[in-house]
Amino acid sequence: MLENLDLSKQIDDKEFEKTLASFREELGVLQRELRDRNIPTIIVIEGWNASGITMVTHAILQGLDPRGFTLHATDNPNDEEQLRPFLWRFWLRVPNRGRFAIFARSWYSRTLAEGTRKLGWKNRLQNRIDAIKNFERQLRDDGTIIIKFFLHISREEQKVRLTEREKNPLTAWLVTPSIWDFHHHYDDYLPVIDDLIAKTDTKHAPWTLVEATDRRYAIIKVYSMVLKILRKRLESPDADKNGEPKVEFVKPPKHRVKRHPAPKTSFTKNDCQEKLNTLQIDMLELHYILFKRKIPLIIVYEGWDAAGKGGNITRTARYMNPLGYDVIPISAPNDYEKEHHYLWRFIRHYPRAGHIAIFDRSWYGRVLVERVEGFCTETEWQRAYQEINEIEEDYVNASGGGLVKFWLEISKEEQLRRFRQREEDPLKQYKITKEDWRNRRKWDRYAEAVDEMLARTNTPYAPWTVIESDNKWYARVRTLQTIVSYCNSLL
Amino acid sequence: MLENLDLSKQIDDKEFEKTLASFREELGVLQRELRDRNIPTIIVIEGWNASGITMVTHAILQGLDPRGFTLHATDNPNDEEQLRPFLWRFWLRVPNRGRFAIFARSWYSRTLAEGTRKLGWKNRLQNRIDAIKNFERQLRDDGTIIIKFFLHISREEQKVRLTEREKNPLTAWLVTPSIWDFHHHYDDYLPVIDDLIAKTDTKHAPWTLVEATDRRYAIIKVYSMVLKILRKRLESPDADKNGEPKVEFVKPPKHRVKRHPAPKTSFTKNDCQEKLNTLQIDMLELHYILFKRKIPLIIVYEGWDAAGKGGNITRTARYMNPLGYDVIPISAPNDYEKEHHYLWRFIRHYPRAGHIAIFDRSWYGRVLVERVEGFCTETEWQRAYQEINEIEEDYVNASGGGLVKFWLEISKEEQLRRFRQREEDPLKQYKITKEDWRNRRKWDRYAEAVDEMLARTNTPYAPWTVIESDNKWYARVRTLQTIVSYCNSLL
Repeated sequence: MLENLDLSKQIDDKEFEKTLASFREELGVLQRELRDRNIPTIIVIEGWNASGITMVTHAILQGLDPRGFTLHATDNPNDEEQLRPFLWRFWLRVPNRGRFAIFARSWYSRTLAEGTRKLGWKNRLQNRIDAIKNFERQLRDDGTIIIKFFLHISREEQKVRLTEREKNPLTAWLVTPSIWDFHHHYDDYLPVIDDLIAKTDTKHAPWTLVEATDRRYAIIKVYSMVLKILRKRLESPDADKNGEPKVEFVKPPKHRVKRHPAPKTSFTKNDCQEKLNTLQIDMLELHYILFKRKIPLIIVYEGWDAAGKGGNITRTARYMNPLGYDVIPISAPNDYEKEHHYLWRFIRHYPRAGHIAIFDRSWYGRVLVERVEGFCTETEWQRAYQEINEIEEDYVNASGGGLVKFWLEISKEEQLRRFRQREEDPLKQYKITKEDWRNRRKWDRYAEAVDEMLARTNTPYAPWTVIESDNKWYARVRTLQTIVSYCNSLL
Repeated sequence: MLENLDLSKQIDDKEFEKTLASFREELGVLQRELRDRNIPTIIVIEGWNASGITMVTHAILQGLDPRGFTLHATDNPNDEEQLRPFLWRFWLRVPNRGRFAIFARSWYSRTLAEGTRKLGWKNRLQNRIDAIKNFERQLRDDGTIIIKFFLHISREEQKVRLTEREKNPLTAWLVTPSIWDFHHHYDDYLPVIDDLIAKTDTKHAPWTLVEATDRRYAIIKVYSMVLKILRKRLESPDADKNGEPKVEFVKPPKHRVKRHPAPKTSFTKNDCQEKLNTLQIDMLELHYILFKRKIPLIIVYEGWDAAGKGGNITRTARYMNPLGYDVIPISAPNDYEKEHHYLWRFIRHYPRAGHIAIFDRSWYGRVLVERVEGFCTETEWQRAYQEINEIEEDYVNASGGGLVKFWLEISKEEQLRRFRQREEDPLKQYKITKEDWRNRRKWDRYAEAVDEMLARTNTPYAPWTVIESDNKWYARVRTLQTIVSYCNSLL
C-alpha cells in the first residue's frame, strides 16, 4: 500500500497559507460544537522518523483551543507503565467527553518499537492487534471519533532529512543511533507497517496514508481529512448517540452456571480456622512467587447485598503481604469518571506486575445494577458482555497474569436474616440502608441478570466461581482455596 | 532523644493477644466514625531498617476495613516522580475525606535517602524541612489527622536482624548492599534522624518514638497512640471543623500593585506582529534550553472575564514546542477534586522537569471567586495567602524552576464593549454567559479581592505582572516579553 503512494505530490505556497488559515478557523468552530455535544476525539499521527509528525501535529494544534485538547507525545513507557499491560497507558489517556487527545505516535509505534525483533513476536503480534482493534472499537461504540494518519516518505528522503538534522546543532540530539538503526532497516519495516495498517484499518477507526515528501501537502491532507470526518459526524443524525450496537441482541444462553447458596457439608468456625491456617501459609508463599515472577492477579468480588463480601475480602487480604495488594472499593461513578468510557475507571486500577488487585464490585456493575436500574441503555449492557470478555482476555494476554472472579451466593431467606441482624446491631447498622431493601424487592430481576452474566462471561481465561455463602466460614475457606489453586495453575 | 529510649521494654504474650483484639475492634469503630464525618487520616510509620515497619503496618491494617484505606509503601521515586518536586508524589497520595492513608516509610525516609551525603545537602535540608512542615500544617488545617511513628532499635539489634534475614531464603533478597551500608553508618545517621525528628515534631503532626526491640511492645504502643489520637479528635467539639486559623486576620496591606488597563503607547496589530515574530525566535530557543537543563516553568493566567486570557494563551503557546508545554484549564472543582485539599488538583499538574505548564486560572480562585462568592469560609481564604506563598516558594526551591503570574487588567468599559461584541457575534456567543453578567455586577468586590491578592502574593520567587489588556495586541506582546525576560533570568 505505502509503496503505491505518489510521493511527488505537492502544493503551492500561496494556496497553502490561505487554505491553512481557513482550515484553522473551521477546526476551532467544530471543536466548540464537539465540546458542546460532549463528543470526544482522538487523532493519531504516525509515520516514519523525520516524516514530519511534530510539524503536522503542531499545525493541527494551532487550530484548536488549547483548553480543549491534550497532546500525548508517545515515547518509551515510564516505569509505572512498564508494570502494566501494553494498552493501559493509552486507556488512561483517552479524552474526556468533549475533548481532543492528539497522539504524536501511539500504540502503533510502540507495537513496532517494542517487539518486532523479539523472539516469539509473531505469535504475540496477533494478540496485540486484536487488543488494539477491541480498544478502538470500544471507544468508537462509546461515541469517540478516531482518526489515524501515517506519514510516508521514501528511504532516500528519510536519509536526506536525518543527515540535515544531524548537521543542525539544535536538532542533532534528536538523531540517536537507534533512529539510524531504524533507517537501515527501512525495507524490513515497510511490509510490517503495511500489514499492521491493513489489519487495523477498520470502519470505526480508518487510516489515512499521507504523502509526506512535501510538508505543505502533508499538512493540508491531514487537516482536510480531520475536518471532513468531524463535519460528517456532526452532520449525521446519530452524532450524539454512541455507536450502533455491534452485538446483535441474543437470547441469554440456555445453560446456566448453577448457584447454590448453601454448602453441602456442615462447617463450623473451628473447621474454618484450621483450614485457613493451612491455606494462609500457601497463600503467603504463592504471593511471594507471583511477586518475584512479576505475575499480576486480579480478584473480582461480586455478590448479593449482605453476602459477606467485606468480611471475605478482609480475611483473604489478611493472608497476603500488605505491600503487595490493593483493595479497590467500587461504588457509583463520580462525575469525573462519568466523563470517560465506563471501563476507564476500572482499567486505571489494573495491578502492577507482581501485585494483586482485589475489586470489591467491578465492571460487572454494567450488567447488574446498571442494567436492572436502567442506568445504561439496553444497547449498552447488551454490548457489555462482549466488551468485558474482550478486556479480560486482553488483560490476561498482555499482562501474563490471572483474573479470578467470585460470585457470593446467598439465599433470599439468609439475606433477610442478615438484614434484620444488621438493623438490630448498633455496630452493624451502618451496613444496611433503604437501598438494600429496595434492591431486595427486585431480587428476581437481579437473579436473571446474574444468571446471564455468569453464563456469558464465564471464560477459560477468567472463570467465575460461585461461592456458597449462606455459611460465611465455609465461604471464606472456599474463596481462599480457589485463589490458591488458581495461583498454582498460573505458575 | 532516640538514645534515651529504654529499648528493653516488652510486653507479655497473653496480654498482647487480648489487647490487640480489642484494639482492632476499636479501630474499626473509629474508622467508620471518621468516614461518616469525612475526616481523613494519615499514619506515617518510619524507623531503622529491620525495625519492624512492615510488621507494625500489617498489624494496623488488620484493624481497618480494606475499603477505607490505601497503603503506600514508599521506595525510590519512579521516573515520573523524579521529574517533579520532592513532595509532589506525597501530595498526590494524601487521603480523600473519610479515608486512611498509611505510609510505610514516607517523605522522612526519602529525605534521608536522597541527600544526606550529597554535596550542598545541609543548605538544602532546611528548605526540605520547611516544605515538609508547610505540607503537614496545610493538611492539618484542612482537617487531616497526621500521626507519625519512628521505630527505634539499637545498632546491635539491627545487625542481628539483618543477619537473620540474610539466612532465610524468603527474605534474603531484602537485604541489599545499600541496607548494609546504611547499617555501617548507623552512628552517623543517629544524630541526623534525631535532628530531623526534633525539627518536625509539631503540635499538628507530632512524632511518637517507639521502643521496637520487642515486636509486641512496638505494636501495642503504636496501636494505643493511634487510638488515643483518633478518639481525642472525634471527642473534640471542633472535630468536624478544619484547623483553627493559623493566620491572624490582618488588614490588607496599604501598598497596592498598580493596575492599568490601557497601555501608555498606542499599538497596532502590525506593531504586534513584528514584535511577536522577534520574540518567537527567542522563546523557541529559551524553551529548548529550559528543556535541556530540565528547568520547569509554571505560567499562571488570571484576569477579568473577557480580558483575553484565551487568545493570549493561544498566541503564547504558538511559540513553544508543542511537546514541551501543557495548558491546564481550571473550572469549578468536580466532586472527586472536592474530596481533597483545595491545592491538590493544582499540584497534580505541576510540570515535569524541562516542561512548561500554563494554568488558565489557578489556585488563586481561592482568594478571588471562592472569596467573593462565599464558596469557602473567611478563615479559609484568609489562610490561603500564606498557603499559596508557601507552596509557590516550596515549588521554586524544590524544582529549581520558575513561576510567573499574569493579571490581565481591562477597564470596566472595555469589558462591557467586549461582552456586547460577543453577544452579537454568532461565533463568539458561546463565550458569554449569564454568570459573566452576574460577576460584572460585583466588579468592586472582585477589585478589592484582586488588590489584596496582588499585594499579598507578589513575592520575589513568584512575581505578578499586571498586563494592560485593553489593547489585546499590546497585551500579547507584553506577556511574551515578560516570559522571555523571566526565562532569561532563570538561566
